Amino acid sequence: MIDPRVASGLRDLPPKVMIPRERMLSAFRQTFGGFGFVPIETPHIERMEVLTGKGAGSEEVLRQIFEVTNKGGTPGELALRFDLTVPLARFVAKHIDELGVPFKRYAIGSVFRGERPAKGRFREFTQCDFDTIGTESPLADAEIAQVIHDALTAAGVPDFTITLNNRRILDGFLGSLGLTGRSGSVLRSLDKLAKVGAEAVLAELERAEGGAGLTPDQARQVLEFAEAGRGGPDVLVAVESSLGSDPTVAEGIRNLRTVFDLLNEAGVSADRLAIDLGLARGLDYYTGIVFETTVKGWEKYGSIASGGRYDNLASLFTSRRLPGVGASIGLDRLLALMDEAGWLGASGTVAPILVAQFPGTSPKVAFKMAARLRAVDIGAEVFPDPIPIGKQMGYGSSKGHRLAVIVGPDEEAKQVFNLRNLATRQEDRGLAWSVLEDSVESALQVLAQPGGGS
Amino acid sequence: MIDPRVASGLRDLPPKVMIPRERMLSAFRQTFGGFGFVPIETPHIERMEVLTGKGAGSEEVLRQIFEVTNKGGTPGELALRFDLTVPLARFVAKHIDELGVPFKRYAIGSVFRGERPAKGRFREFTQCDFDTIGTESPLADAEIAQVIHDALTAAGVPDFTITLNNRRILDGFLGSLGLTGRSGSVLRSLDKLAKVGAEAVLAELERAEGGAGLTPDQARQVLEFAEAGRGGPDVLVAVESSLGSDPTVAEGIRNLRTVFDLLNEAGVSADRLAIDLGLARGLDYYTGIVFETTVKGWEKYGSIASGGRYDNLASLFTSRRLPGVGASIGLDRLLALMDEAGWLGASGTVAPILVAQFPGTSPKVAFKMAARLRAVDIGAEVFPDPIPIGKQMGYGSSKGHRLAVIVGPDEEAKQVFNLRNLATRQEDRGLAWSVLEDSVESALQVLAQPGGGS
Repeated sequence: MIDPRVASGLRDLPPKVMIPRERMLSAFRQTFGGFGFVPIETPHIERMEVLTGKGAGSEEVLRQIFEVTNKGGTPGELALRFDLTVPLARFVAKHIDELGVPFKRYAIGSVFRGERPAKGRFREFTQCDFDTIGTESPLADAEIAQVIHDALTAAGVPDFTITLNNRRILDGFLGSLGLTGRSGSVLRSLDKLAKVGAEAVLAELERAEGGAGLTPDQARQVLEFAEAGRGGPDVLVAVESSLGSDPTVAEGIRNLRTVFDLLNEAGVSADRLAIDLGLARGLDYYTGIVFETTVKGWEKYGSIASGGRYDNLASLFTSRRLPGVGASIGLDRLLALMDEAGWLGASGTVAPILVAQFPGTSPKVAFKMAARLRAVDIGAEVFPDPIPIGKQMGYGSSKGHRLAVIVGPDEEAKQVFNLRNLATRQEDRGLAWSVLEDSVESALQVLAQPGGGS
Repeated sequence: MIDPRVASGLRDLPPKVMIPRERMLSAFRQTFGGFGFVPIETPHIERMEVLTGKGAGSEEVLRQIFEVTNKGGTPGELALRFDLTVPLARFVAKHIDELGVPFKRYAIGSVFRGERPAKGRFREFTQCDFDTIGTESPLADAEIAQVIHDALTAAGVPDFTITLNNRRILDGFLGSLGLTGRSGSVLRSLDKLAKVGAEAVLAELERAEGGAGLTPDQARQVLEFAEAGRGGPDVLVAVESSLGSDPTVAEGIRNLRTVFDLLNEAGVSADRLAIDLGLARGLDYYTGIVFETTVKGWEKYGSIASGGRYDNLASLFTSRRLPGVGASIGLDRLLALMDEAGWLGASGTVAPILVAQFPGTSPKVAFKMAARLRAVDIGAEVFPDPIPIGKQMGYGSSKGHRLAVIVGPDEEAKQVFNLRNLATRQEDRGLAWSVLEDSVESALQVLAQPGGGS
């Protein structure tokens, strides 16, 4: 016998995880498509050279690459993708002449990283990315935030904050302190502010070895800038009065104001938006607006939808300059959060009806009734074996069916059926076969009302 | 510069392929769910031992395995799955005690085989499998055929034939000729009948070396049995009169009759069903009913949905006997067929509306109008840059938008918009902003009617 375990760091997704997951992905696809984002798919396997090209992934990510070989293949030639961004860059470089710009795509798929396995961290996980390539319009920037907003709303997340910044403001401020060359290490420290607190960040900013090597005065100014820079659009007024004469800063402020205005026009509530002038989102990649999203009351999960604007997506693969803006929703993290918060329905099936197979009744009856229900778009599962009816009801309750249709030999003779509520065990008895669809539909409507029975 | 090509035998799926593909998968998920099949997902990476266990895959498939290793991992330990059946067996062995039976699952995902690349044959392709585990009921058999029927209908396949057989009839017949021990090679030859013709099959049946080694008389009887065994339920009458006293054959006939009766109750037209007593579907795996499906007029594509009943799914992993029945839809093959037949809509977007951004008009106008349309479930894309309007219309036409909403500076002042049919270039001019949703909705309804404008 072979042990049926999965490999270390990997996992099976059973129906009770997959059902809310499929529902969420369907809401995302609907939202992305409604904005004119179109789906693409690239292979899970890429050429190694594509994945390890300069700047494609951080050193840490490259160490985690899964190499792939088949018999007769050359070792070291192929690998599993570790994100959807590098494949997007390759795809765009290869196909952009046929596709034209702006090119708005979404992609949903598994990515692989050989990380040390840990609780809640897996070697295969799902990314949901959407990007607009080939435009520098602030309208595209605003739209990415709007898609995050609409996708999370469609997925049933009750309240969340999309935090915005523009990297040009931060860059201009660091330039004003003469720290342009050290922005990398400064931003790396600032990104930790929410996690480790002000003291630790100050210490790291001042540390020469492995830190930014700032003077105590510079470190204090950087921290004050970040801490004062959190709030609504009013923080832009403050930074404008101190740094507005810097053209880089002014450009960043103008961009964020336009984005806020556009989102307001689109009906995105101001409550859902915040500014954080210390928000950097990584080091080199982003050059304009950046986004992070946290769920209110569940900030410990970190950002569940993040992204930003970049100057040049595919410089590894083409000399054509392709600016863009995009974001990624962390599907697994969001599902884990919603599960803990109790916001996911817990059913193990999407078919609300179980049609029982009563011992002694012709199986044709159950088969036909289920087909009639499906014909009016009501999911109906037929229990396949004529085992004792109590066991069939137990199966329905544990799988999450709402109602059972039961026809015993007596009911078959009279052409009637019983309709059982699987939660309350109450039964409507002796309903005529001719009113099957209507009876089931109204019973389901009652159940769907608040306090409607389960 | 790195060459942006994909590795040999792999491919990118651009939007014009992905849009009909997503639509089809959504129809399949809806159908599977409506019968109480629930989704599961297993990792793309499995332990090598799981994939190469005795009987898990044919020798040919095992030669094509992609091995996977990461830094610090042990070579030879992990590999990419080559189908969804072995992972299902492992999953069921591991989780069946929590899940209970009957367990009805579907799974949709990529599988990998290092085949020699050829036209239309790829090293990564998608399988859509659905199975009912833990019951021997003929009702579950009939349901698999019904799901194939409903899924293909939902996907828009106009006409197709589901061909059925029961392996017990074939086994009983071969037994009556004293050929039980040689059924493997006989079935292998018979499976080629449609492809190579009667002469070649006869020759192979008689060949001693690499054939079945039958006498000319036995070979002729086998061929006659297969050729006479194609048609409607009437072929069962003929085989019953000749072989009905064999209990194995009688069991197979009874099963097929029950399945035909049940499908008839469920409203599956008899035109869509056929019997082929020579249909074997591989050698050892299936033990009862088997299915194949061809699209009428497109038989050259072979079967696009196939499956059958097996005695014991997970014997490699558990001593618990788990009989089941299932089928797999060949998504890539079906899409290629429908594309060639012209049955796929050809649009490059799912958002029917393009909201243009007129030079000189505030971008807020376009942003707001698009948000209003989406709020009533009409997909609307905003063009991000105020480039000349003709170019924006060209983008919309080539991407597949149906209508464009256009507001120039004059229209902005008067709070009106123009609605342009992108195919005919006709414009309704000067419509009030207040009737945006209604105007767009009725224009789309006109376009959706036969002959409605594109």
